[in-house]
Amino acid sequence: MPQLNYLRFMIKVIILGGGNVAFHLTAILLNNTTVNVVQVYNRRLEKIAHLDSKVLITSNIDDLKEADIYIIAVSDDAIANISSQIKFKDKLIVHTSGSTAMEDLPSNSRKGVFYLLQTFSKEREIDFSDIPICIEASHKKDLVLLEKLANSISNNLYYFDSVQRKYLHIAAVFVNNFVNHLYHIGSEICEQNNIPFEILRPLIQETSAKIISLQPIDAQTRPAKRYDTKTVEKHRSMLTKDQQEIYTLFTKSIYQTYGKKL
Amino acid sequence: MPQLNYLRFMIKVIILGGGNVAFHLTAILLNNTTVNVVQVYNRRLEKIAHLDSKVLITSNIDDLKEADIYIIAVSDDAIANISSQIKFKDKLIVHTSGSTAMEDLPSNSRKGVFYLLQTFSKEREIDFSDIPICIEASHKKDLVLLEKLANSISNNLYYFDSVQRKYLHIAAVFVNNFVNHLYHIGSEICEQNNIPFEILRPLIQETSAKIISLQPIDAQTRPAKRYDTKTVEKHRSMLTKDQQEIYTLFTKSIYQTYGKKL
Repeated sequence: MPQLNYLRFMIKVIILGGGNVAFHLTAILLNNTTVNVVQVYNRRLEKIAHLDSKVLITSNIDDLKEADIYIIAVSDDAIANISSQIKFKDKLIVHTSGSTAMEDLPSNSRKGVFYLLQTFSKEREIDFSDIPICIEASHKKDLVLLEKLANSISNNLYYFDSVQRKYLHIAAVFVNNFVNHLYHIGSEICEQNNIPFEILRPLIQETSAKIISLQPIDAQTRPAKRYDTKTVEKHRSMLTKDQQEIYTLFTKSIYQTYGKKL
Repeated sequence: MPQLNYLRFMIKVIILGGGNVAFHLTAILLNNTTVNVVQVYNRRLEKIAHLDSKVLITSNIDDLKEADIYIIAVSDDAIANISSQIKFKDKLIVHTSGSTAMEDLPSNSRKGVFYLLQTFSKEREIDFSDIPICIEASHKKDLVLLEKLANSISNNLYYFDSVQRKYLHIAAVFVNNFVNHLYHIGSEICEQNNIPFEILRPLIQETSAKIISLQPIDAQTRPAKRYDTKTVEKHRSMLTKDQQEIYTLFTKSIYQTYGKKL
């Protein structure tokens, strides 16, 4: 297959951000023979100070060097502001946000998206090789460049436009943030009743492992498939007000999903 | 340690039920040198017909043999009815329900609970060795017997009374049935937008794996920690009515949990 000439060389990357995504992305790219991390920028230098011996760091956006790709890995509401301060014209600027359109990047740049569909915490190491990476680019040659970057860290590449990616992101909020909130409520109920939360861990692991081989609709088990007013009332009475609201809504929603099948 | 005499012998067990719990419990106990499965009962014989070559099966509750433990592994609302039909007096009868009190078993029997805290589907093999087993018994010597039974299949034994077990069960409903329902909604959103559900699987696995090393409250990531009216409205407009209700409730509940910390 014909390749663009510059793809034979290392991709020069600058990462902007100091949060969880920037933290992990910088770490994996620093250990990558396809990529040369030229510089890391963050508004607060102390959040990237641990990189000082490995790469050029700065908290002054006017000091940015030249690079092939500027990766904006900051919170959604800071993307427009930070990307607009990049002084170079006609450079490839990508963000890593699931819910932000590619068009929100500055109009005097070549635009792209490099969305890593995973949950990152600084405390946890991440195996990048199976992380789905969703790419999008305003120019065909930039898509090829982002492909090369993505393939250098993961085997799981997807092409979505900004609308599809927004839906994917909201689906991710349901299966990650909302699921984690249910874990939190489970731990709360345990704590309130002197039950060690550890006891729920095998169940939590199996519930998620089931999804590898079964569709969620087939993995659902009793008693949630039933809607038994007596049981619902009994359970409600055991819960705090917040917990009750979630309990009632789920019990109804699950019944609406499965009710007709039983 | 002194042991009761009969504990040197194999425990004679009869299992009543043909659902997912009975299916897996029978399979593991048939391969167990501590236990002799004497008989399996189910109202509908075809659900236990696959056991015919391995163990005595019956659909006639009057044909039940003598045994040390009768394990009632049926749905919650059938426990009282089935256990009351066991003709022997003063036998140890246990149920496997998280939400049913031990006292709901017949008054002319010795009572116990043998609650397996796991989600069972016939399609999936289960590693019993780390399943938490919660036992309770009305007589001290029966607790010793249930301990021996539990230890023969798992290393994860707990002693809870019926009240604590009810709270544990409801916590399990949140982290299993409700979580699975969120997976279902995630798959629905994907399907509605021509996105393969497989793409969410690494995120689902990591979200649950985080819980092994982090408390749920520490595992929660942005953007769910924030409550941003504009984003909430944007996301709501992308969802069906049912999905909207869950989205709104979680967004609020997560904000109430984290809001003050930010």
